[in-house]
Amino acid sequence: MKAVGFKKGFDISKENKFEMLNLPKPKPTGQDLLVKVNAVSINPVDTKLRTADYDDYKVLGYDAVGVVEEIGDEVELFHIGDEVYYSGTNTRNGSNAEYQLVDEKLVGIKPEYLTNAEAAALPLTSLTSYEALVEGLNISLNPDDNKDKTLLIINGAGGVGSIATQIAKNLGLTVITTASRKETKRWSEKMGADIVLNHKHHLPDELKAHKIEEVDYIFNTHSSDAYFNVMADMIKPRGRIVALVNFMNNVDLNLLKDKSVTFSFEFMFTRPKYETEDMIQHHEYLRKLSYQLDRGTIKTTINTTLKGLSVETITKAHEMIEQGNSIGKIVIEY
Amino acid sequence: MKAVGFKKGFDISKENKFEMLNLPKPKPTGQDLLVKVNAVSINPVDTKLRTADYDDYKVLGYDAVGVVEEIGDEVELFHIGDEVYYSGTNTRNGSNAEYQLVDEKLVGIKPEYLTNAEAAALPLTSLTSYEALVEGLNISLNPDDNKDKTLLIINGAGGVGSIATQIAKNLGLTVITTASRKETKRWSEKMGADIVLNHKHHLPDELKAHKIEEVDYIFNTHSSDAYFNVMADMIKPRGRIVALVNFMNNVDLNLLKDKSVTFSFEFMFTRPKYETEDMIQHHEYLRKLSYQLDRGTIKTTINTTLKGLSVETITKAHEMIEQGNSIGKIVIEY
Repeated sequence: MKAVGFKKGFDISKENKFEMLNLPKPKPTGQDLLVKVNAVSINPVDTKLRTADYDDYKVLGYDAVGVVEEIGDEVELFHIGDEVYYSGTNTRNGSNAEYQLVDEKLVGIKPEYLTNAEAAALPLTSLTSYEALVEGLNISLNPDDNKDKTLLIINGAGGVGSIATQIAKNLGLTVITTASRKETKRWSEKMGADIVLNHKHHLPDELKAHKIEEVDYIFNTHSSDAYFNVMADMIKPRGRIVALVNFMNNVDLNLLKDKSVTFSFEFMFTRPKYETEDMIQHHEYLRKLSYQLDRGTIKTTINTTLKGLSVETITKAHEMIEQGNSIGKIVIEY
Repeated sequence: MKAVGFKKGFDISKENKFEMLNLPKPKPTGQDLLVKVNAVSINPVDTKLRTADYDDYKVLGYDAVGVVEEIGDEVELFHIGDEVYYSGTNTRNGSNAEYQLVDEKLVGIKPEYLTNAEAAALPLTSLTSYEALVEGLNISLNPDDNKDKTLLIINGAGGVGSIATQIAKNLGLTVITTASRKETKRWSEKMGADIVLNHKHHLPDELKAHKIEEVDYIFNTHSSDAYFNVMADMIKPRGRIVALVNFMNNVDLNLLKDKSVTFSFEFMFTRPKYETEDMIQHHEYLRKLSYQLDRGTIKTTINTTLKGLSVETITKAHEMIEQGNSIGKIVIEY
């Protein structure tokens, strides 16, 4: 089968070590599904994993839509022919390939009324958002509980920010996002943001200009270092902060003490990497997502589509992600 | 009225600036109760606040049992003559005085079957423990949800550890504590600890000796710096950590990233200090506590009783707390 991979990590602005490989088609065992991949999307985590070295060829790709072609002997949730979507795990080969093995507990049935490309934009960023909002920030799934609650999402027009905004609006929250360009501000409003702050300015001042002193929750999808101090400033007493990105420096955590603030990291691969007992939570979140996508209460975040599994399309998508100003999601249709 | 206070912070091992004062008896307004104090307990926070300077005389004391003698015109929850207990707030004068003003939202009805001294041991440490366990660690109030969950409490025989162990056992958790001396180990077992680790040894090894690899929750009531790395090691993927003590140094927070761990600070004065909208939560927690104390499912943590409001008893209690090896709680009966 065709797959795009590499062995030694590289800086894509200087060289390109992606290769079109011809790998053996894998065979599912246990709870694994063999999926024929039809569309994928590329995420910042792909570009990070591309800078590491591997003993064997590494195939990236952590968002896929496809069809179940074979199943392992312990599979219970899916049948051959099912259309599925999933993120998967960073510990196995990814979806930049014609076929991929994935544990059924990480997989959901593809939303019926979305195209393959529309659906491929969603699994990784949605799983990240559900875990961050529901588990990290402990936001109630009952919108009645959230009527008076305000969430600030830093970088509202990014892949995660775009879907997190929609999920949070469906949960009944007031959602404030940040953006700086006219087109990112407009995109974030389209995703449902009630207020868009300009992150080129001092955020607490931006917030006060909207007569808001503090927020109940902050979801920082951007630099943890750059925003730590202003987050400590803007969060309510007993508020909660969740972040995605590693710190470059050690942190003055005491800034959170006086207000008894909670800080969580959200790393979507924690469950599959550690094979936690509740790994099936990814299946559950994807089911919840499909339901909302098919009802139209959540919309896809796709913004760019490339065609065909090739070194060229994968490279192009990595370059676009690394420029750091992409809006919504970049999808590759095979 | 008599009160023990001071103006300039001091090191109690070198000098004593506590004075017996004669202050005007305060008058309650709004939601304030005027309480005639009958017993208090002393906490580590008293010794910290004793090292700061104040413009006016500062009266410490953040655990009290007494009788409501007068009420403000907006009081709704209490009547004159009610026996009450409370912690109060660090922003007003405390309970080392014959009389004290306290907002009714921070007050509970004293447990009926406990003596004044037995009840005075409990408010601050119990409020801290409820907030830490239920809000910081997000532990369910339904014991059925917690059957397979394990909590590690660092310093099980301290004031907070002693009551947190009992609350956690009532919530259905397996509770592991730490202690090092024979008498602290025995005390912690009496409080309900299922396993007591020796914190003089490497805690992850101690845990593995009991065939436990990782725990769901950690409540660190001791040094945050000393235990941060081993907590990151012992916590389960997607686990939660709560701590009480400020860090001396900046923190390598990335240690929590791979496992998506949540870290919370618990500071019991956050609600009263910021006068949060849900400040009445302290009243609710104290009501829950009284119910359990009167049923006997939670027992007082008193271990030492001193007699009389005087410079001598307050000084003695501060000295005992600062030695850092006290067991349970120190109470002063007026």
